[in-house]
Amino acid sequence: MTEHGTLGVAVIGTGRMGADHVRRLHEITNGAAVAAVADPDAERAKRLADGIDGCTAHTDPDAAMAAPGVDAVLIASPGPVHEAQLLRAFELGLPVLCEKPLTPDAGSALRVLEAEQRLGRRLVQVGFMRRYDAEFLRLKALLDARELGHPMMLHCRHRNVSPSPGFTEQMMISDSVVHEIDTTRWLLGQEITAVRVLRPAAPDGSGPGGVGEPQLVLFETDGGAVVDVEIFVNCGFGYQVRCEAVCSAGSARVGDGHAMVTNAAGRWGGEIAQDFVVRFEDAYDREVQRWVDACRRGVVEGPSVWDGYAAAAACEAGVRAQATGERVPVELVERPALYR
Amino acid sequence: MTEHGTLGVAVIGTGRMGADHVRRLHEITNGAAVAAVADPDAERAKRLADGIDGCTAHTDPDAAMAAPGVDAVLIASPGPVHEAQLLRAFELGLPVLCEKPLTPDAGSALRVLEAEQRLGRRLVQVGFMRRYDAEFLRLKALLDARELGHPMMLHCRHRNVSPSPGFTEQMMISDSVVHEIDTTRWLLGQEITAVRVLRPAAPDGSGPGGVGEPQLVLFETDGGAVVDVEIFVNCGFGYQVRCEAVCSAGSARVGDGHAMVTNAAGRWGGEIAQDFVVRFEDAYDREVQRWVDACRRGVVEGPSVWDGYAAAAACEAGVRAQATGERVPVELVERPALYR
Amino acid sequence: MTEHGTLGVAVIGTGRMGADHVRRLHEITNGAAVAAVADPDAERAKRLADGIDGCTAHTDPDAAMAAPGVDAVLIASPGPVHEAQLLRAFELGLPVLCEKPLTPDAGSALRVLEAEQRLGRRLVQVGFMRRYDAEFLRLKALLDARELGHPMMLHCRHRNVSPSPGFTEQMMISDSVVHEIDTTRWLLGQEITAVRVLRPAAPDGSGPGGVGEPQLVLFETDGGAVVDVEIFVNCGFGYQVRCEAVCSAGSARVGDGHAMVTNAAGRWGGEIAQDFVVRFEDAYDREVQRWVDACRRGVVEGPSVWDGYAAAAACEAGVRAQATGERVPVELVERPALYR
Amino acid sequence: MTEHGTLGVAVIGTGRMGADHVRRLHEITNGAAVAAVADPDAERAKRLADGIDGCTAHTDPDAAMAAPGVDAVLIASPGPVHEAQLLRAFELGLPVLCEKPLTPDAGSALRVLEAEQRLGRRLVQVGFMRRYDAEFLRLKALLDARELGHPMMLHCRHRNVSPSPGFTEQMMISDSVVHEIDTTRWLLGQEITAVRVLRPAAPDGSGPGGVGEPQLVLFETDGGAVVDVEIFVNCGFGYQVRCEAVCSAGSARVGDGHAMVTNAAGRWGGEIAQDFVVRFEDAYDREVQRWVDACRRGVVEGPSVWDGYAAAAACEAGVRAQATGERVPVELVERPALYR
Repeated sequence: MTEHGTLGVAVIGTGRMGADHVRRLHEITNGAAVAAVADPDAERAKRLADGIDGCTAHTDPDAAMAAPGVDAVLIASPGPVHEAQLLRAFELGLPVLCEKPLTPDAGSALRVLEAEQRLGRRLVQVGFMRRYDAEFLRLKALLDARELGHPMMLHCRHRNVSPSPGFTEQMMISDSVVHEIDTTRWLLGQEITAVRVLRPAAPDGSGPGGVGEPQLVLFETDGGAVVDVEIFVNCGFGYQVRCEAVCSAGSARVGDGHAMVTNAAGRWGGEIAQDFVVRFEDAYDREVQRWVDACRRGVVEGPSVWDGYAAAAACEAGVRAQATGERVPVELVERPALYR
Repeated sequence: MTEHGTLGVAVIGTGRMGADHVRRLHEITNGAAVAAVADPDAERAKRLADGIDGCTAHTDPDAAMAAPGVDAVLIASPGPVHEAQLLRAFELGLPVLCEKPLTPDAGSALRVLEAEQRLGRRLVQVGFMRRYDAEFLRLKALLDARELGHPMMLHCRHRNVSPSPGFTEQMMISDSVVHEIDTTRWLLGQEITAVRVLRPAAPDGSGPGGVGEPQLVLFETDGGAVVDVEIFVNCGFGYQVRCEAVCSAGSARVGDGHAMVTNAAGRWGGEIAQDFVVRFEDAYDREVQRWVDACRRGVVEGPSVWDGYAAAAACEAGVRAQATGERVPVELVERPALYR
Repeated sequence: MTEHGTLGVAVIGTGRMGADHVRRLHEITNGAAVAAVADPDAERAKRLADGIDGCTAHTDPDAAMAAPGVDAVLIASPGPVHEAQLLRAFELGLPVLCEKPLTPDAGSALRVLEAEQRLGRRLVQVGFMRRYDAEFLRLKALLDARELGHPMMLHCRHRNVSPSPGFTEQMMISDSVVHEIDTTRWLLGQEITAVRVLRPAAPDGSGPGGVGEPQLVLFETDGGAVVDVEIFVNCGFGYQVRCEAVCSAGSARVGDGHAMVTNAAGRWGGEIAQDFVVRFEDAYDREVQRWVDACRRGVVEGPSVWDGYAAAAACEAGVRAQATGERVPVELVERPALYR
Repeated sequence: MTEHGTLGVAVIGTGRMGADHVRRLHEITNGAAVAAVADPDAERAKRLADGIDGCTAHTDPDAAMAAPGVDAVLIASPGPVHEAQLLRAFELGLPVLCEKPLTPDAGSALRVLEAEQRLGRRLVQVGFMRRYDAEFLRLKALLDARELGHPMMLHCRHRNVSPSPGFTEQMMISDSVVHEIDTTRWLLGQEITAVRVLRPAAPDGSGPGGVGEPQLVLFETDGGAVVDVEIFVNCGFGYQVRCEAVCSAGSARVGDGHAMVTNAAGRWGGEIAQDFVVRFEDAYDREVQRWVDACRRGVVEGPSVWDGYAAAAACEAGVRAQATGERVPVELVERPALYR
């Protein structure tokens, strides 16, 4: 860290999320500075760096991590290159905030898990931002306090206006439902043991967006809970993330998002956020702030590599369940002591 | 009543409300039959009567009341002729359900009050249908039970899509706010002692419908409560009646009307009823059923001539307050024993 | 029918629902009279009959159906005796409103179906009262009009405060989820083709009420839709029936039930109905009124014997799915012309 | 500013709001550092300063403003000393974020207004934090865009759990309703021209908290709008700030605050924030961030001294209206060019 205690951050990947994190670290976050950015697109990196005093631009992630003033790394590059970048950060002993997914599959996630174990201490926080959303935090507190008794079911809805170009059916699991996988594990403190996927068949054999959807994804957990997730990536009307926890003495729901209510033209109601960046803006701000605060105190908190690995394993099972229509068990290695 | 205990009803006036009551009595209400209808428009009366076995059509209200099989009278004629029709019903000893207003002004209402007193027993139920709405009934029960402590304020909203042809500014008070006048008196069990009207001035000097509106009507009561009523007869978007009671230990609101909630095209929300007949359909059904049930048991219940008179007096004060911008006291005669 | 056109009804079974229907027919419904009641408990039948002019009491259902003035039959007896009573009504040519279930299993329902076919005309309306609930009717209209595009999923919640004594795990399907079975078939106009049941395992191996619950029941339909139903018969907090239809261009939800909203003691919110009789009071009133109206016009409408049979078949599959944890197909005979 | 571009802030007053702002500037705000704190309670100032590198503690506000590294001043001291501190900041040419009220009365506010005019440029942002609340910002945008037509009424609710010790009846206006005064002026872009106060009379002559309340405060504006404000400082159940704007083509409401909804024990609903610090936490964070951002760019934005002066004048009228029961006009000097 600098003499003023400011955390110098290297941001790897300056696409949509990366650029947003650069802006956040530079303009919103307390106690952090963007010390370096890296992107294969040298122009894009340079444009971002130019706006920030003391920030250097790189095409090589390793160079960015090694740049002067870098105390920590925020990885916002595509999933397939995460493994190499994480291992490099481990060599440099730098704390990392790694956007989800940790890595694209359970095998590579397991290698990262083993590497961090060899290091003997946690360096990575995985970017499951819902854990920092005010409503989800309140739900978590209520469940942990057993205010409504024992949780037994979660009903989840996850809707996007439309998929980004190149979005595939399996990305419905690995890119979208991965959030509900983490939400389930975090809210309940339980591991997912099996996944099923039920697919409605539209009259013409496909969903509105060309992929067969919406789909209903079902989890079982080792604590006996049942979770259903509606995933609808082309719902057309807005971005909606809802979760209702059904407990033995009551239920609790978050995500209705009723801010301003209008009456007009025969209808009452309000706007639906069109985008996760809008819906979870505060959660991202809080996530990054907490990460910076922890780094400056020399600790690592939040979702761990184990969480990233368990999510990857559940995603793999989910993709197989989607393809086969069968119940697919989720298999995990034993949980290492470092993550207990 | 007929040998089967069915209550034969003469319906006086077959405009929108009268025709709706004929339909209700004939098709919905238990234990009643439409025995006679009267309307200055002979054709209209005949058309209605023709659809109902044993129902006779009249142009003269007195003839309808004297027709065979008539046990009770439902008055749905224009306000100015109510007085004569009520007095005639008194002579015949027939119980009456009289659509609001009882009469158009406090003077005539007082004459009806005195006539009923001379009769020595109640014959009239005034058609303040909100007293039969499920939500208002629940609010009344909550206030009566002092569940939230002592009621101190009411915030009321009364919005119509658009005024009917010929609607005048003073009808905002005497035709619309008259409902809030009764709601206030009934919910709180208090008399209104003064009225004020505040009128926003639109940039061009008038409200959207040509009358200066919305207006804010303010009541004080003899129990110390303060009531505000937004009256907006040309709001354009729907028919909305809301009421929030503010008590010493909490508040309660009815009228949000959230039945079906949809998500579509970037918005969540629902439909607003476009019409009081739709919004208060159940209340009208219940009002008429209760009246028929009471008549068949030989009793009279519900809003009384006193309620009709007190509403008329408050309306008169309201119209004067609207014209002058001043606080106008409401003056009532002493409440007769018959109505205590 | 009597000379006044009143429909004389024999009510068979005077338990909770039967007694409520007697009250309804006598006090609420227009154009009907209770002409006879039958119950194995002679005292109970007599007590009810005594309060109603011209109503006779019986212990033998056949005697009640044959009593003077009986034009139609309302069957509210236990499911196992429905078949014999329905067949008797067929012999007498009497229209029937039969409380759900039509019969307790698909085999007996099929026999009733065949008997009505032999008769060559419909006599039976099955008591699926949700089809008469204002919110469900609105949802049905919206789906039929394709206002939100093509329906692809239903998310249903069905919660009871606590089960009645003697309630068994399979009754969660045959007594409770049977309503969602009919709702699904009616709202979508599709047949259910397979059922699955997922059961959370509480830490101590059982749900809060001793039966393993809540359970998640899943339907597939011949139109390609996927339906999930949370059934929770011992939720403790209230009676809640919700349904969200997810369509290609939006979603719509009914059953939130937000009537009066209070603020008190640090919380905003409202009451949850404790009972289906309260929640669906208006639906029952409307169901019986529509049935009486149709009978008086000499027609039969509403849920048919086919609907009762298809529900019974889906229930059987559901109970087997509950026991085995497997996906169980629903097998139906070909739909007879009478019910197309 | 320091060589790193960090804004060094002197915080004057370290009571509840001041201490919270110190925490905010130190831990949340980007680009700011607390360079000095001042409080008559030397211990309290020292305790706060000790936790922050390079922060000095003072009892004399002037010394704090003159301390090394101070680029800007945040005034969170009691209202009566604001004037002197503002004038001192003017001498030093330091930008100021001044907690509301600007000063306790219109006379002193006018002197500050004149002093800033002599300076010839704006230095002060007044702490009306609602202007930074996400919901109020959305409402403001909707009104400015005339999405619902012309705004004609505002219905406001302002409820506190209980008043702080020493809270007087006139503080209901000057400490609480002052927020609605600013909200009205800001949302509508209009000046308040007259104030009325209606006071319910509880049976025992006083409100639940000893002050006569709730009260209904009414504003008229120079744009012809009518505004009603329920102020209830001892409502007992929570902190609630609501505002509904009624426009010529619709209405819009903010402040319902429906985050998490639970079902339990016969009720659905959610928690009400107990405190303005909780309800407006994000607004305070945003307010201070925007101020810091503007200071670092060398500009002054947000609510101006004119806004503080106009609010003080309306408060004075409100307090007089409260005492007299009369309509009291608000008199303002002509708006200087600096604030147009």
